[in-house]
Amino acid sequence: MKVYGDVWSGNCYKVKLVLTRLQLPFEWIPVDILKGESRTPGFLAKNPNGRVPMLELDDGTTLAESNAILWYLAEGTPLVPGDRLGRARALQWMFFEQYSHEPNIATARFIVRYLGNPPERREALAAKMAPGYAALGVMETHLQERDWFAGGACSVADIALYAYTHCAGDGGFDLGRFPAIRSWLARVESQPFHVPMG
Amino acid sequence: MKVYGDVWSGNCYKVKLVLTRLQLPFEWIPVDILKGESRTPGFLAKNPNGRVPMLELDDGTTLAESNAILWYLAEGTPLVPGDRLGRARALQWMFFEQYSHEPNIATARFIVRYLGNPPERREALAAKMAPGYAALGVMETHLQERDWFAGGACSVADIALYAYTHCAGDGGFDLGRFPAIRSWLARVESQPFHVPMG
Repeated sequence: MKVYGDVWSGNCYKVKLVLTRLQLPFEWIPVDILKGESRTPGFLAKNPNGRVPMLELDDGTTLAESNAILWYLAEGTPLVPGDRLGRARALQWMFFEQYSHEPNIATARFIVRYLGNPPERREALAAKMAPGYAALGVMETHLQERDWFAGGACSVADIALYAYTHCAGDGGFDLGRFPAIRSWLARVESQPFHVPMG
Repeated sequence: MKVYGDVWSGNCYKVKLVLTRLQLPFEWIPVDILKGESRTPGFLAKNPNGRVPMLELDDGTTLAESNAILWYLAEGTPLVPGDRLGRARALQWMFFEQYSHEPNIATARFIVRYLGNPPERREALAAKMAPGYAALGVMETHLQERDWFAGGACSVADIALYAYTHCAGDGGFDLGRFPAIRSWLARVESQPFHVPMG
């Protein structure tokens, strides 16, 4: 199994974290998106959407979209809830992550960390703050009454949300306002075989 | 089972289409997002993210995120692939739909159809064209060699992508450039118990 990705991308880190948590062997193929390595003809032949992470199975089959890769790797393990409503709840939070969380919290971090916070992106960065804090607020509300996002245990939903939440400060978000999120981050980090980003 | 939604929203239509395709009974509760009906205290108590569609089960349990609702309704039916890779492939396209397709194609339609294409949104509308056409291009490439998006049959991935693709013209996208997409739209529409939007 090969993973094409950037170890400092949260979407790629998710995949590494699930593979490590499940103690599955894999080969990491570094892809530098700023150098256009995810848009070469060779890469586009494997993933026409030109994005990382991408999983390549031993038979050459490729799979894209970080959260779909998580599902593929974790289905049938304790990281995917065993009941129908639990699975749907995990997917609810994973779609929330890609629609309401990542485009704000990850993109703010990208502007600051990858692009060096250039003046011409200040307005775009500022526009991420309100919806990013709104997403964190939705998470905080949920976590005030529950330890995990779905199925009563740490699942792929927690790993998907952890990836960009734990480094939200890189993009200028202040997690000091969110005590339930900070407790949950520590719970995720205390799980067996947790591995930090990078 | 109750569905809270707007019949002209593609994300809500997806849920109606799956329920109809599966011949499941449901009650539709209209929610007018332009009047703020998805942001009232009562609605936010059921879905803190303040969005439609929302599914409410008979025991009061609520589920949000259109594609998670689709998965909940269709798991165990022919609309969800029966093998692990097929399920992951369906999810790959459903995450693609929410990340690369909907924010461009649905948002362009929202600006034109819901907001009346106001001058102050012209720039935002124009910015949706290139990434929206890129998403349609990724779909076209896939459909040039395959009839369906996952598992060799019409699945929840096709329904998720159909919802905003079939009305992409509302937002200014020209589907005339995409013959494989147009053939696929007709295939989806020819499935048993298909129902049009509205």
